[in-house]
Amino acid sequence: MTPTIVFLSDFGLDDEFVGICHAVIARIAPEAIVIDLTHGVPRGDVYQGALLLSRSAPYLPEQAVILGVVDPGVGTRRRAVAVRTVPGHFLVGPDNGLLSLAFAGTGPVEAVEISSPDILLTPVSSTFHGRDVFAPAAAHLAKGGALAELGPRVDPASLVRLSIPPAVIAHELNEVAAAVLIVDHFGNVKLAASVRDLEAAGLGAASAILVSAGGRVSTARRAVTFGDVASGALALIEDSSGWLALVVNGGSASERLGLQPGQTVTLGQDRSQPAR
Amino acid sequence: MTPTIVFLSDFGLDDEFVGICHAVIARIAPEAIVIDLTHGVPRGDVYQGALLLSRSAPYLPEQAVILGVVDPGVGTRRRAVAVRTVPGHFLVGPDNGLLSLAFAGTGPVEAVEISSPDILLTPVSSTFHGRDVFAPAAAHLAKGGALAELGPRVDPASLVRLSIPPAVIAHELNEVAAAVLIVDHFGNVKLAASVRDLEAAGLGAASAILVSAGGRVSTARRAVTFGDVASGALALIEDSSGWLALVVNGGSASERLGLQPGQTVTLGQDRSQPAR
Amino acid sequence: MTPTIVFLSDFGLDDEFVGICHAVIARIAPEAIVIDLTHGVPRGDVYQGALLLSRSAPYLPEQAVILGVVDPGVGTRRRAVAVRTVPGHFLVGPDNGLLSLAFAGTGPVEAVEISSPDILLTPVSSTFHGRDVFAPAAAHLAKGGALAELGPRVDPASLVRLSIPPAVIAHELNEVAAAVLIVDHFGNVKLAASVRDLEAAGLGAASAILVSAGGRVSTARRAVTFGDVASGALALIEDSSGWLALVVNGGSASERLGLQPGQTVTLGQDRSQPAR
Repeated sequence: MTPTIVFLSDFGLDDEFVGICHAVIARIAPEAIVIDLTHGVPRGDVYQGALLLSRSAPYLPEQAVILGVVDPGVGTRRRAVAVRTVPGHFLVGPDNGLLSLAFAGTGPVEAVEISSPDILLTPVSSTFHGRDVFAPAAAHLAKGGALAELGPRVDPASLVRLSIPPAVIAHELNEVAAAVLIVDHFGNVKLAASVRDLEAAGLGAASAILVSAGGRVSTARRAVTFGDVASGALALIEDSSGWLALVVNGGSASERLGLQPGQTVTLGQDRSQPAR
Repeated sequence: MTPTIVFLSDFGLDDEFVGICHAVIARIAPEAIVIDLTHGVPRGDVYQGALLLSRSAPYLPEQAVILGVVDPGVGTRRRAVAVRTVPGHFLVGPDNGLLSLAFAGTGPVEAVEISSPDILLTPVSSTFHGRDVFAPAAAHLAKGGALAELGPRVDPASLVRLSIPPAVIAHELNEVAAAVLIVDHFGNVKLAASVRDLEAAGLGAASAILVSAGGRVSTARRAVTFGDVASGALALIEDSSGWLALVVNGGSASERLGLQPGQTVTLGQDRSQPAR
Repeated sequence: MTPTIVFLSDFGLDDEFVGICHAVIARIAPEAIVIDLTHGVPRGDVYQGALLLSRSAPYLPEQAVILGVVDPGVGTRRRAVAVRTVPGHFLVGPDNGLLSLAFAGTGPVEAVEISSPDILLTPVSSTFHGRDVFAPAAAHLAKGGALAELGPRVDPASLVRLSIPPAVIAHELNEVAAAVLIVDHFGNVKLAASVRDLEAAGLGAASAILVSAGGRVSTARRAVTFGDVASGALALIEDSSGWLALVVNGGSASERLGLQPGQTVTLGQDRSQPAR
C-alpha cells in the first residue's frame, strides 16, 4: 500500500516553510504521497485547523498519516505528539487540540510524545517544529515505523481536546441556536447544527427558515442544493459533511449576512409559511 | 507509463476541498501523479477555466486525465461527463462547457455520463461532486479503467460547447477588434487574436500599434519579448500560446490600460509611424 | 534513490504556469518527486527568490535538482544555466543571480549554458522559459542525465552573483546595523545578522535590545522562542536558519515596526537594562 501523508498548516504558501517540510519528508520517506490539505488556516487558529482536519478524516486513505501544524505555542512546553486512531490513521502535531476533533468520535487508541533523538532533526530549532519534529515523525510513520519509536507513551486521556459547541434547541419556540464554524471560499456559512437538530426543533419540514444573527433577520429557503433556489437567493442546505450551511446561489452568504466564525445564528420558524 | 491527472478548479486553496479530492484519488489510484493546474479560477467562472484548460492541453503527458471542476450548477440536472479526445486525453467534469475548449480543435471522440454506482462515492452529496463524482471517475481512468465503465454513452455532439470570439478585422481601417480573454498574474492582457490577424489587417509589419479600449488610446511597440522595450513601456507581443498579448516590461498592462476579461480592444495603425 | 526537483518561481498559483511546468516534467521524468518550494516570490524579485533558495538548500535531499524561475529578463540575452554544487545539488534557472546565494558558501563546481536542441521544447517561446527551457533541463538532470548534455560548459566564475549585505558592527556604540532580508507570512522580520554579530557588538548577553528603524525606537526582549515573551510583546530571536529575527508573539513585527525588505535596522543597547 502506498503510504500517504496529509499535511495541514497555517504556514501560507509564500515562504519556504511548506516546501521544506516536503523536502524533509522526501529525504526520509520518498515513497510517500504527500497531500496538501490546506496551508491557508488563519495564522494560529488552532480551532479552524481542527475543524478542517475533522471534516477530512473520513475521506483519507487507510493508514494515512495526518500532519497538522498550527502551533502558536511552538518552543514552549506544549507537547509534540503522535496519536493512533480507531480507523487506523496516525495524527502528528502539537498537543494543543489541533488533532482532537479528528479523533473525537472514537477516541485515540494510543499516543506518544515525539522526542526520540533518532527522529528529531537536530539541533531542533525553537521556532520551526514543522521541519524539525513533526515532518520527520510523520515520515517515520509513513514508511511503516512504529509509533513507539517516536518517544514515550502518554496517556491518551491527557491529550488536549477541543469540542464543537452543540446546537441549542428551544422546543417551544421552534428555534435552533448554532455557532458559525467555518466560512468557506465560496462564502458558504457552515453551522454547528444538523438536519436532526432542525427536526428536533420542529422545523424539519419547513420550506423557509428565519435566520437571525447580529440583530438582522433574513429568510432562507430550505433546499437540497444551490440550483434549487433563484440566483442570488439565500438558502439553508445540508453541506457535504452533513452540517447545515447558509448559502447564496452564485453569491456569498457570509457577505450577505455579515457572518464570521464564532458568531451565533438562530434558525426559527417563518410564520408566514406553513410550519410543517 | 505513469498515469497523470491534471486538476483545475475554482475551489481556492484555503479550504479542505482540493486536498480531499487528492485523498479520494490516492485511495483509488495511488500510483497516479496528480498535478494541480490551478485552483484559482474565479468562483464559478466556467469560461476562464475552459480557457486555461485549452492553453494547457498541448503540454500534457499522453493519456493524461484532465479533471476540471468549475461547477456553479452542481446538484442540478447538468450532466457529469467524461470525454476522450483525439490526442488521447480524457476530460472529466461537468457538462457546462468547461471542458469544451480543450477539445475544440479536433472534437471529442466519445463521451459518457458519469453515473455508475461502482464509481460514485455514495451517498453522493448535493454540493461536492468534485469529491463524490469527478475525482473517483478521474482516478478510475488514470488507473486504466474503461471509459464505458463510468456510465452510458452520450452523443459527443450533445456536449455543451463554448467558443472563443473571433477577432474582427476591418481591412479598410487597418484594425483588429479582439476580446480580452485572460489577465494573468503579471498583468499581461491576452487577446483573442493572433499575429495572423494583425497581418490580415495590414498591421503585420508595423513597429507600433494603436491600442484603443474604453475610450483610451495608447501606443504599444511590437516586440518579441519584454526585454525588447524600455522598462515601463507598453508592448504587443505573441505570448507563449500564440495569442497576442499586451504587456508592460516590469509592470502590469492590465492596470495601465484598465483592462479586464470580456472587454474589447481595438488594435490599429499608428499613423505617426511607417505603416508597413 | 528517488529523484527530487524543488521548484520555486514568481508565477503565482492562479494561472496555468506552474501546472504546465509540472506537466512538462512529468512527460520527461515521471518518476521524480516535484516539490513546490513556493511560487509566491514577489513578481520579478530575484533577490527574494535567491534568499529563499539559500535558506532551503540545507534541507534538500541528496542530488536534488533546484528549479528556480524568477526571470524578468526572459527572452533577452541573459543565459539559461545549470550548475552543480559542492553538496551535490543541481541548480537550474536564469543566470541573473537567483541561484547564486544557494552556492555562495562553497562555490559552484561546474556550470553549463542550457542550449541543446535535444533538451529544449521547441519552438522555444520568448516569454515562458520555465516551460520551454528550465523545466525540461531540470527533468533531464532528475532522471540522471549528464550536465554536459544540456549545453556547453561556462566558467563558473562568470555566473552572476548576489550577496547578503554584511551586518555593520559599531563596537564603541554597541550597535549592529543590519538589512531586513525577508518578512514572512507571520510578519516576522528576518535580518542580515546573526547572534555572533550581536556578541561582537557586546550585546550578546543583553536581555533587551533597542531597535531603531525609520526614526522609530522600540525595545525588543531577547528570547529563544515566541512563548518566552508576553502575548503582543516584541522579541529578538534566532530564527530557524540562524538569522536574527524580530517577532511579535501572536502578532506581526512587520506591521508593528513598519518594516519591509531592504530597510535597515539598528540593534543597540537598552541603557535602562544591565548591559552584559
